[in-house]
Amino acid sequence: MHAPILRLDPSLETALASGHPWIYRNHLPPHRLETGDWVRLVAGRAEAVGVYDAAGQVAVRLFARERVPAAADLAARVEEARALRRRWVPPETDAYRLLFGEGDFLPGLVADRYGRFLVVKAYSEGVRRAVLPAVVKALGRALRPRGIVLRNAEGLEPLYGEPPPPKLTVRERGLRFVADLHRGQKTGLFLDQRENRQKVRELAAGARVLNLFAYNGGFSVYALAGGAAFARSVDVSEGALADARENARLNGLAERHEAVRADVFEFLNAHEETYDLVVLDPPALAKKRAQLRSALRAYVRLGAGAMRRVRPGGLLAAASCTAQVSPTAFREALAEAARRAGVRTQIVHEAGHAPDHPLRPEFPEGRYLKFAVLRVLEPIG
Amino acid sequence: MHAPILRLDPSLETALASGHPWIYRNHLPPHRLETGDWVRLVAGRAEAVGVYDAAGQVAVRLFARERVPAAADLAARVEEARALRRRWVPPETDAYRLLFGEGDFLPGLVADRYGRFLVVKAYSEGVRRAVLPAVVKALGRALRPRGIVLRNAEGLEPLYGEPPPPKLTVRERGLRFVADLHRGQKTGLFLDQRENRQKVRELAAGARVLNLFAYNGGFSVYALAGGAAFARSVDVSEGALADARENARLNGLAERHEAVRADVFEFLNAHEETYDLVVLDPPALAKKRAQLRSALRAYVRLGAGAMRRVRPGGLLAAASCTAQVSPTAFREALAEAARRAGVRTQIVHEAGHAPDHPLRPEFPEGRYLKFAVLRVLEPIG
Repeated sequence: MHAPILRLDPSLETALASGHPWIYRNHLPPHRLETGDWVRLVAGRAEAVGVYDAAGQVAVRLFARERVPAAADLAARVEEARALRRRWVPPETDAYRLLFGEGDFLPGLVADRYGRFLVVKAYSEGVRRAVLPAVVKALGRALRPRGIVLRNAEGLEPLYGEPPPPKLTVRERGLRFVADLHRGQKTGLFLDQRENRQKVRELAAGARVLNLFAYNGGFSVYALAGGAAFARSVDVSEGALADARENARLNGLAERHEAVRADVFEFLNAHEETYDLVVLDPPALAKKRAQLRSALRAYVRLGAGAMRRVRPGGLLAAASCTAQVSPTAFREALAEAARRAGVRTQIVHEAGHAPDHPLRPEFPEGRYLKFAVLRVLEPIG
Repeated sequence: MHAPILRLDPSLETALASGHPWIYRNHLPPHRLETGDWVRLVAGRAEAVGVYDAAGQVAVRLFARERVPAAADLAARVEEARALRRRWVPPETDAYRLLFGEGDFLPGLVADRYGRFLVVKAYSEGVRRAVLPAVVKALGRALRPRGIVLRNAEGLEPLYGEPPPPKLTVRERGLRFVADLHRGQKTGLFLDQRENRQKVRELAAGARVLNLFAYNGGFSVYALAGGAAFARSVDVSEGALADARENARLNGLAERHEAVRADVFEFLNAHEETYDLVVLDPPALAKKRAQLRSALRAYVRLGAGAMRRVRPGGLLAAASCTAQVSPTAFREALAEAARRAGVRTQIVHEAGHAPDHPLRPEFPEGRYLKFAVLRVLEPIG
């Protein structure tokens, strides 16, 4: 397939050669491209091929060096992604991220597997038009799922086979979870925390566990499966807590599970009880760079409140999924939270992304999830 | 114990209150302190108590907020550190870091356990004089080791019990390793890579493994224990390779182990063979900030060479123990190496410090080890 050539300023040669998959709008010269067009960019001796979007900060998402990828090329990338999951997804697990956009060399596109269904999301209208059809065809041929749907602002759009039922049950390391592909967070569940939930399971034997922003109780179920004395799930949403109760019940763990409907900030102010293990996994606190400072302030407040709820020598498992918060800023927020709470802390475990959310080293923007387990100790006089 | 008071510039109030354990020399006013003196620092409303050193960039290492720690306070920190290891050190392991200086609230001091012996290192002469005696007493009472020695430039200085034999055998997750506490790297072995060696073991089934800068063959032994088809240890030191051979033999793995004496740069240039899994764990490439650029250049060259030795779809396990190289710079070096090697890569696993090398969030200088597992793929046309 032919694609028009656009010459960028030669100063962009290094950037274009770096393999970074995004070209910002302000770097494009005048042109007549339309959303979904393939375009060949040239800067000095560097070149790359991508898909144009008329809206958004990222004007072109790059897919290749020299030629517009054919359907077979895109199918090969789907195969590469599958090979990664075959090797790295743990056993007894049928819900995971199958395609992680830029991280799997398919910029702007994610696909999650939930049992026999796939949910796709497109973060670029251009990619949805130019790339998604071939990828869906490849996914259908390779996995033979019962259905593939595109999740967008309006709901689910069927792309292949039959639509998923209102709720279905998936497995993670042998544990069972209800997934709502129609209305759940992200594409249905927070698949990205699977390895962090497993770490909590490993640490939970005998522990009294507090799970803040519990959502569907994922960390609680893992903690209980790991032998926690009890797990208290706190969330402001009754719907989320209903799911948490159902997930605890599905795994035969309901007796040691307690769901508390509360605003987490208020809960932390109102209660004095301490726990052996506190999980703090708030939703993204900033959507844009401009909200970063207030997001960090909120995280410090939550972190300090959570640390006060840890008994001396106990653990805090802290996560941040806010892309704008760098690993360094996350660590600094934890340090400031400890200072406010008047405790000493040690980071005993830190994790990067799970293997089904691979990162390309040349694309730091792909990293959004941070996770650390801290030991909380009494202050020194 | 009383300590003289030194008033710092009030602009240092936030820094002093942050819990960061170092005060740089240029931040001290004129004084008459001598190495090993306790000193009380005040800046605005913040205060802290530490030990003075007449040499080095760090003039004071902070140990407390308000009072000079008594022997019992220091013993309590040793107990805290022991409690962390009891919980987090894996089974069948009798070699690990027992005290990690700042990370265990004992700045300037590390202590490693090797079976029934402890090796101590002091990074501050002041701390050695003012703190070490009480810590050694606490270690002796708590662990009843056969011996405790201080390792310094001259060799081993006995502090308690008997001196260790020339070589002894320790266990890591049931695997056996020879340790030379007199002449080995660090205090005898690279204990900090234990969890990363374990990750390599999990990935090694059936793999042809190349271990670059193999030292005593730690990664090779773990890979072979994990079912590697073979492991080739490359190191320039005949003594290191002799240890690697001995460690392979000790674990009944010598048949699948091969030791190659070579400069790694030259080895990478001279050979074309590819492997399923390549381990790249060079020694620290910079000791000072001024050497950082040349260290990064060297790392890029090594990374590119190592990536070329990975078969398409295979893995590179890359480590950097250079403290001056930040996690971000490490990732950038890997990206640049991939560009040079003409391959695509994905970071599939990243690790922080092992639990027996805990990090305080307010002390980023404590982090030195970076580790990532990358999948290496053929270029896209």
